[in-house]
Amino acid sequence: MPSQGAEEMFSNPLRALWARGEVPINGWLSIPSAWTAEIMARSGYDAVTIDLQHGYMDFETALAMLQAIGNTSAVPLVRAWWNDPALIGRLLDAGALGVICPLVNNRDQAAAFVGACRYPPQGFRSYGPTRAASRYGDDYFERANSQILTFAMIETAQGLANVDEIAATPDLDGLYIGPADLSIALGLPPETEPSDPKFFEAVDRILAAAEAHGKIACLHARTPEYAQAMLGKGFRFVTLGSDANLLSGAAKAIVKALKT
Amino acid sequence: MPSQGAEEMFSNPLRALWARGEVPINGWLSIPSAWTAEIMARSGYDAVTIDLQHGYMDFETALAMLQAIGNTSAVPLVRAWWNDPALIGRLLDAGALGVICPLVNNRDQAAAFVGACRYPPQGFRSYGPTRAASRYGDDYFERANSQILTFAMIETAQGLANVDEIAATPDLDGLYIGPADLSIALGLPPETEPSDPKFFEAVDRILAAAEAHGKIACLHARTPEYAQAMLGKGFRFVTLGSDANLLSGAAKAIVKALKT
Amino acid sequence: MPSQGAEEMFSNPLRALWARGEVPINGWLSIPSAWTAEIMARSGYDAVTIDLQHGYMDFETALAMLQAIGNTSAVPLVRAWWNDPALIGRLLDAGALGVICPLVNNRDQAAAFVGACRYPPQGFRSYGPTRAASRYGDDYFERANSQILTFAMIETAQGLANVDEIAATPDLDGLYIGPADLSIALGLPPETEPSDPKFFEAVDRILAAAEAHGKIACLHARTPEYAQAMLGKGFRFVTLGSDANLLSGAAKAIVKALKT
Amino acid sequence: MPSQGAEEMFSNPLRALWARGEVPINGWLSIPSAWTAEIMARSGYDAVTIDLQHGYMDFETALAMLQAIGNTSAVPLVRAWWNDPALIGRLLDAGALGVICPLVNNRDQAAAFVGACRYPPQGFRSYGPTRAASRYGDDYFERANSQILTFAMIETAQGLANVDEIAATPDLDGLYIGPADLSIALGLPPETEPSDPKFFEAVDRILAAAEAHGKIACLHARTPEYAQAMLGKGFRFVTLGSDANLLSGAAKAIVKALKT
Amino acid sequence: MPSQGAEEMFSNPLRALWARGEVPINGWLSIPSAWTAEIMARSGYDAVTIDLQHGYMDFETALAMLQAIGNTSAVPLVRAWWNDPALIGRLLDAGALGVICPLVNNRDQAAAFVGACRYPPQGFRSYGPTRAASRYGDDYFERANSQILTFAMIETAQGLANVDEIAATPDLDGLYIGPADLSIALGLPPETEPSDPKFFEAVDRILAAAEAHGKIACLHARTPEYAQAMLGKGFRFVTLGSDANLLSGAAKAIVKALKT
Amino acid sequence: MPSQGAEEMFSNPLRALWARGEVPINGWLSIPSAWTAEIMARSGYDAVTIDLQHGYMDFETALAMLQAIGNTSAVPLVRAWWNDPALIGRLLDAGALGVICPLVNNRDQAAAFVGACRYPPQGFRSYGPTRAASRYGDDYFERANSQILTFAMIETAQGLANVDEIAATPDLDGLYIGPADLSIALGLPPETEPSDPKFFEAVDRILAAAEAHGKIACLHARTPEYAQAMLGKGFRFVTLGSDANLLSGAAKAIVKALKT
Repeated sequence: MPSQGAEEMFSNPLRALWARGEVPINGWLSIPSAWTAEIMARSGYDAVTIDLQHGYMDFETALAMLQAIGNTSAVPLVRAWWNDPALIGRLLDAGALGVICPLVNNRDQAAAFVGACRYPPQGFRSYGPTRAASRYGDDYFERANSQILTFAMIETAQGLANVDEIAATPDLDGLYIGPADLSIALGLPPETEPSDPKFFEAVDRILAAAEAHGKIACLHARTPEYAQAMLGKGFRFVTLGSDANLLSGAAKAIVKALKT
Repeated sequence: MPSQGAEEMFSNPLRALWARGEVPINGWLSIPSAWTAEIMARSGYDAVTIDLQHGYMDFETALAMLQAIGNTSAVPLVRAWWNDPALIGRLLDAGALGVICPLVNNRDQAAAFVGACRYPPQGFRSYGPTRAASRYGDDYFERANSQILTFAMIETAQGLANVDEIAATPDLDGLYIGPADLSIALGLPPETEPSDPKFFEAVDRILAAAEAHGKIACLHARTPEYAQAMLGKGFRFVTLGSDANLLSGAAKAIVKALKT
Repeated sequence: MPSQGAEEMFSNPLRALWARGEVPINGWLSIPSAWTAEIMARSGYDAVTIDLQHGYMDFETALAMLQAIGNTSAVPLVRAWWNDPALIGRLLDAGALGVICPLVNNRDQAAAFVGACRYPPQGFRSYGPTRAASRYGDDYFERANSQILTFAMIETAQGLANVDEIAATPDLDGLYIGPADLSIALGLPPETEPSDPKFFEAVDRILAAAEAHGKIACLHARTPEYAQAMLGKGFRFVTLGSDANLLSGAAKAIVKALKT
Repeated sequence: MPSQGAEEMFSNPLRALWARGEVPINGWLSIPSAWTAEIMARSGYDAVTIDLQHGYMDFETALAMLQAIGNTSAVPLVRAWWNDPALIGRLLDAGALGVICPLVNNRDQAAAFVGACRYPPQGFRSYGPTRAASRYGDDYFERANSQILTFAMIETAQGLANVDEIAATPDLDGLYIGPADLSIALGLPPETEPSDPKFFEAVDRILAAAEAHGKIACLHARTPEYAQAMLGKGFRFVTLGSDANLLSGAAKAIVKALKT
Repeated sequence: MPSQGAEEMFSNPLRALWARGEVPINGWLSIPSAWTAEIMARSGYDAVTIDLQHGYMDFETALAMLQAIGNTSAVPLVRAWWNDPALIGRLLDAGALGVICPLVNNRDQAAAFVGACRYPPQGFRSYGPTRAASRYGDDYFERANSQILTFAMIETAQGLANVDEIAATPDLDGLYIGPADLSIALGLPPETEPSDPKFFEAVDRILAAAEAHGKIACLHARTPEYAQAMLGKGFRFVTLGSDANLLSGAAKAIVKALKT
Repeated sequence: MPSQGAEEMFSNPLRALWARGEVPINGWLSIPSAWTAEIMARSGYDAVTIDLQHGYMDFETALAMLQAIGNTSAVPLVRAWWNDPALIGRLLDAGALGVICPLVNNRDQAAAFVGACRYPPQGFRSYGPTRAASRYGDDYFERANSQILTFAMIETAQGLANVDEIAATPDLDGLYIGPADLSIALGLPPETEPSDPKFFEAVDRILAAAEAHGKIACLHARTPEYAQAMLGKGFRFVTLGSDANLLSGAAKAIVKALKT
């Protein structure tokens, strides 16, 4: 993370990675705990995302998690529990460097989301970045609009139908695919790593929209094998591994290993 | 867990497992979170231990963790942060069914520890088991002295020297080996799964003392391989896997898998 | 509660009670505490409702309360603080088996509420039931839409005027009467157990709408006498006793008993 | 604060100050802590405002802060994180005696805000003032609509354009100026104490609207000098000093004093 | 409570009650919640005691509870979880006006307990009463030694044997009887309102010791009937009603009333 | 702070400052909040100390504060609430780089304190530095004994009488003067910046003992003027400014500035 007092400008390290053509790996934080956040953020991830939608933290815990992540080099992102400008503003004030917004269904929702992440005149974010400014530097206000990342999730039938107009939203940085919800939208079971051709068709459509509008496509994956396979399709950002699943999986595996 | 309203007597399921000759597997909870506690407790463990010594929870979080574990079939144990009767009493009131006490160095400390876990006249535990009685039944008071488990850790040079008198303590249920501290006590580095002959000599001595006095020996292990290898020596209880280590290990592994 | 690992299907025990013609009794949780939640849930109630509207808990405390209730046989319900799909989704993920929605004024609001409680295609709930699936079983997703309960509160002049169209909402399970707000809507003082004929007229109208559309009517009562008197009118579910009121009432009574 | 059991009617002390022609001073609470809230509330302020928008507290912490402030003579106000009736209702239930609403842009938003603060028929606040009624007295319900204060923030280009219609809102008590956001709206940098003539023009316009409709204008200031200078313009309420800024400023000053 | 800024000296209201010959009634707080603390403190009690031994709160929650109680006229007391000077000092700093110490067995323990409650030279309390001084006034330090109350619990066989030397402890204010533990010490079951003659003999012995040394005897009772019957024996302070028991009892009663 | 992944050895930056002859400035954290901790740690202090004795945080909050401080360059220290090895071990595990121990009265207490901070064979600290090792590097265990700082407070009559034997304790790094308690011990009022000659005599005695045994003397000061004046006497470390006092002072000053 850009440290306080650094003489450099405030900048989002993920933008530098993309500029270099790298594909950053993102970890997923659903456990409401600053300690698990710090553990995850030290595991080699380029970014970690605090999930306020299906994760179990309130805002104050998210703040503590942002402070914990601030001890490491991982870029702190958040997934908002809704396209809610009040929540988004508070999370940015607390130091999040990017927001993933669930359930974006059309152009207006996408524009509203992006507006919540940008100070006027680009958007309507309210001013008061107490922690963000002290953590990232005195140029935070001037540079926030260009450095904060905005990802819209395409995960409903409507969102998929409107993916092109969503992708065309100015100042939107990327499209994010949540496989389980997208699968349900397609009439499939909520698999985290689907193999149905209908799913891949939808993915291709989202990737095409992203590419057409110069946006970054991000996939939410569970295993490195699936992630690897999908990266070839053109994703430039990938989420791999959620804290709760990693813990549950590792615990079940170790017990099973001894019991059998 | 014996559920409320059951017509059976309050009893500690671990005692039944030992009676059947089984070797229960214990999970280790160091993360201060009721959600990770519930995840761990659903992973197949026979018991889980809330570690208040090197884990990071205060009492109130331990209470919440005990409530979370109460949703599952895992037996809730605790490691106290010290041979502290006030803390031990509070954890038992909140529903812990066994206590692991660190740093037991001699007969008097062992007796003090056991006394803190037993109502008079066997010990000096104070009365007020609000949650324990409502969770385990109206016969809690009558049966608590016989059902609550007590494990003394042998992990210092002094404790090792006095292991026989410690093992002889009436009402003490078992001896617990923490490999890292025991290693340090032996002048070795703090490995979690040591291979030094000096360590195995100490282990044998502890196992012998346990066997001589009819106590249950428990080993704190990190991998199923080591656990398996050690179980042959006579351990009747084994801890395998700590939440923080499992999470950190799984996260690092998955990132590495994709990056390479 | 259907316990983990049970071979039976995930099902909501309240539906079974209604199928048998019983009138379940619901307790009300307004204190932000997992310990009082467990106390209440052990008091004989068939269900307990965590009130996020006039109760004082944030989401994380509600999660802890759901974990506490999970130790008992009471069915965990919630009252949302608003017809807010983000909040409702989070509470369902955490294990609530039913939602009471305040201030439902018309058909659209009722449909939006029900949609927030149902996965597509019936609704638009987002997927991620981490705790719910681990607590209730692997068939949670398939059965959630049919098992989660939805109650709309009729408590405004507008809601009363539109009660029939609200009751007609597909997938809505019941209508819930909050006497104080309904009284205010009728120009009466906010009594918890009103006796004004205007109130009874409104109740009759709501009961008729519920009956006409096969919905369950639920009354929020304070005393067993009033509850008993009202049950004869056709209510099939009744809330009786709020934690804060019960505590305050009992404390004032005991002090008064000694002082006089 | 009007204390429990007092024989007087429930009344908002700030109204009495204004009736006497005084200009109350308000302190700003952005730190999520009941202890700092009590410290601030004992510092001589007539009122203190818990800022849920750019401050970092969730509702439960706000409740604890309201309880802490209740030990002192300062009047407890809140700034909501949005024009959100659910949040506003909960904060009033918990004992807030006034609400500052951010980002009010037009007549409808102002009316919606005021409606959330008033019981029917004036508004649509839901009934359940558990703490407020026990803290302020049995006449809380009857007098709440007349005693709770409502301040709309004018801080966007749209809000400024519509300031007259906003000021005309019945039952709205005042207009509140947040200089940083208003400056951004005017194309100026986000200064907390701006000196640009464009800013003063906007201030004059807001003051004129307030005066025209008999509303109280409030300024958010950082230094006593600026506050003093602005009070001459007609403000009848002033915020002076935010906890985080006061702490940061004092700490930096004392370190600097010793280091130089 | 003596309010801040009052011109009167800091004084403990309980001392005034005793000076007038009254018998104050004390409520018992075992639930870790500032909201239930405020509810209890508004129920007519002269004092309320935060029980850190068998109650479930950590220190920070106790602080919040002290702040909540500070809204009312009830005098805040605490029961320490042990004769632990660090804990006692922290609770006094936070504003407790008296301490009940469990398990006092002899003269030395009694003296150590009292010493922890008094500044030198009478005791060894460390200086730093941040909240206490701001809450009770600038004369807090000068008057704390004379105003803070100290009660030693007589509840073990050893304590009963040494009750006279304990009662003789200078600066000790009273003896407190916990019936359940005292019963266990006498070989009786842990009843909260015992009727065994052996129990009454012990009570008489404690009362005699208290009277001989001018100390206040306090009884922990559950029902007004028992309390009334015992007050005739000479108790000058009585605890009546614990939050958890009151809540549980009231909830079970109301459910039973409707179900039968 | 030495950051994770750095190739340098784990080392305590304060030792480097002393090696260069500098006098580090320490800030004092008594507010239980990770946000105020981060604010203080960014104010220019070389170190900040979390005060668990007269501050109001439990362990979990101290952990969050350590994580917050880890975002800055300030060295995190703690004051334990007692010479309590369990607490000290937990705070070191969580990442504290030094401990101030209150109320050290003699050689044995000093040795016990130092032992709690050192792994065997130098001391008896138990192994499990989960966060410390991940934060400071893989060489944490090897270097902890040499890098962790230990300060004994001299603040009682007995401690002052035994100051020489305390100062002689091997592995003790320094002596810390708390002026208020030391004043009380001398029969003076508890001033934070005393001017009584008796106080200065005691200070000289402590400084002499420190110098004789090569220890660092540290003064707890409130104003830069006093600190400056005292530094000339030979102190090599100084605490200047406590969060609660700084906040309270700044708030009272700003209100007063406007009101007058």
